[in-house]
Amino acid sequence: MKKISLKDIAQKAGVSTALVSYVLNGKEKETRVGEAIAKKVREIAKELNYQPNHLAKSLRSGKTHTIGLIIADISNPFFANIARVVEDEAKRNGYTVIIGSCDENAEKSWDLLNVLINRQVDGFIIVSCEGSENQIRYLKERNLPFVLLDRHFPDIETDFVATNNYKASYDAGIHLIESGYERIGLIAYQSEMYHMVERIRGYKHALNDNNIAFDANWLKEVTFENMEQEVKTAIDAYLAADYKIEALIFATYGLAINGLKYINELRLKVPSDLAIVSFGQAEVFDLYYCPITYLRQPLELLGKTSVEYLLKKMKNPEEGMKQTLMEAKLIARDSSMAKSTWMAE
Amino acid sequence: MKKISLKDIAQKAGVSTALVSYVLNGKEKETRVGEAIAKKVREIAKELNYQPNHLAKSLRSGKTHTIGLIIADISNPFFANIARVVEDEAKRNGYTVIIGSCDENAEKSWDLLNVLINRQVDGFIIVSCEGSENQIRYLKERNLPFVLLDRHFPDIETDFVATNNYKASYDAGIHLIESGYERIGLIAYQSEMYHMVERIRGYKHALNDNNIAFDANWLKEVTFENMEQEVKTAIDAYLAADYKIEALIFATYGLAINGLKYINELRLKVPSDLAIVSFGQAEVFDLYYCPITYLRQPLELLGKTSVEYLLKKMKNPEEGMKQTLMEAKLIARDSSMAKSTWMAE
Repeated sequence: MKKISLKDIAQKAGVSTALVSYVLNGKEKETRVGEAIAKKVREIAKELNYQPNHLAKSLRSGKTHTIGLIIADISNPFFANIARVVEDEAKRNGYTVIIGSCDENAEKSWDLLNVLINRQVDGFIIVSCEGSENQIRYLKERNLPFVLLDRHFPDIETDFVATNNYKASYDAGIHLIESGYERIGLIAYQSEMYHMVERIRGYKHALNDNNIAFDANWLKEVTFENMEQEVKTAIDAYLAADYKIEALIFATYGLAINGLKYINELRLKVPSDLAIVSFGQAEVFDLYYCPITYLRQPLELLGKTSVEYLLKKMKNPEEGMKQTLMEAKLIARDSSMAKSTWMAE
Repeated sequence: MKKISLKDIAQKAGVSTALVSYVLNGKEKETRVGEAIAKKVREIAKELNYQPNHLAKSLRSGKTHTIGLIIADISNPFFANIARVVEDEAKRNGYTVIIGSCDENAEKSWDLLNVLINRQVDGFIIVSCEGSENQIRYLKERNLPFVLLDRHFPDIETDFVATNNYKASYDAGIHLIESGYERIGLIAYQSEMYHMVERIRGYKHALNDNNIAFDANWLKEVTFENMEQEVKTAIDAYLAADYKIEALIFATYGLAINGLKYINELRLKVPSDLAIVSFGQAEVFDLYYCPITYLRQPLELLGKTSVEYLLKKMKNPEEGMKQTLMEAKLIARDSSMAKSTWMAE
């Protein structure tokens, strides 16, 4: 198939090539092209399946109108859904998003970053993975515009938009304590990432502020790679302990899914055998036999704001640093209902 | 930060730039560089955070070692998970994957295709959306290597790897009939896409082969855009009918999620009020109070095979057409248990 040119459209429409160019570049208003003519040109362009040459266009403008989005794990619905929000928002602003998923692997993240830099995206939105600090420093030092999304590094000055994970986790602890639970476990990732450190810190503070002595056996840290097996081992250890925990917080969606599957396997009843609160959000929390209390992160707002910050940064690289922590909201449901409620039943 | 060059590494290692180039391009064996020297060079490259210039490299080779993956909807876990498989398999073969999601929108799909063509990916793997036939023809006519994944167009000769949707849907119908259900509904998308047409055809044939007269009210076709509301309306219509359906097949994961939420809202009991079988696969089907019978599509194999076909096509454009339909497997669980079982309870 021959590539359709502006000239082809001009010939068919019986107008000049320049006029076609004006219309297709959205400049008909400036040049006072009549609306009927503009409409005709657009229709013919569509009919002939005209594809603007973005590359040529971007070589002229120095802009590609493309955003690179690197997410930590595409198979995690939180990230997949936030990617959808970023795309919609970018599209509304005339940008196309190219996505790479690094599967929580810093080496893969480097590859993706390089591929996207070489593909000349205008800027980046990044959900960082562990060990990728040097990549963020690299972007900074090369003055490539970027915004960190959902996860950030407190030691590196960057634009970011993330959830206040300390507060969210603190709220989860307080909620369980207020519901009458005292021995509260937390399953988290073994990670030095700030969001994970903050989730552990918030949980501990909630206990401390309520004079509950934190028992080191209550906190289990598992690896991302062997999550399935290690979550099982953690739950087994909880159940074998002298003083069993009464409630359990899952620090991520993935941990919750693996944990809930095993809890079902063991035929434990939620909440009477074990009350549950989880980070992350997904349909499964609604449809579980005992709806799961979760921390609703402001997914829409996180995604939209990351695009907004990036566009501002790209427009004016001298803009001041923008750093926003947003609050998660605890959505209380049956999985953490007041102990007095189910004990009375 | 100054970009690290081969020369920088050579100086630090005390060897020639050419030798560094040999090592970093994996040619040390050919040139008989000692292993100790090679190791030293690699370590210094790592230490200095050397980034090979892929663009320059690909300009020489004419290859970018990048695959463009266009999926129909990133927020659908089936596609997000298949993207993960494609990435892993591509990575194993030395390729990086750039993903675009078109949200079932043909215009967005065009944009993505153009962005990725201009970014010079070596080939495409595409989960097509409705109305994108012209895009597939465009790729064919330009001799750009591609493989269709999960969805294909029977009228266009292309490489593809997809599920045998007719058979899967037929199996779902037969399974329900054998479990004692006769009045069986199907909620599908209003779509001319072949995979959807085939799912409807298989369902009808299963009824027909068992002398069950298909009632036009049993089939509800909803739009992707207003799925949530239209699924509710469909279920309301089923319940208001003189002869209520006893069992319901959801033609996609998204339809099932919306349907199950509404079924819970109405406090219908699965399977005694309504037996359920669904396409798609997700954690939610395991964790629902009554585990959901579903058609397990060979996600891993679909993803891997698409990469395999694409790599072959890129290596040898003259390779014959490869078209594979794979079988889904019905995973029978409580949501479609034999009517006699729960009636006896």
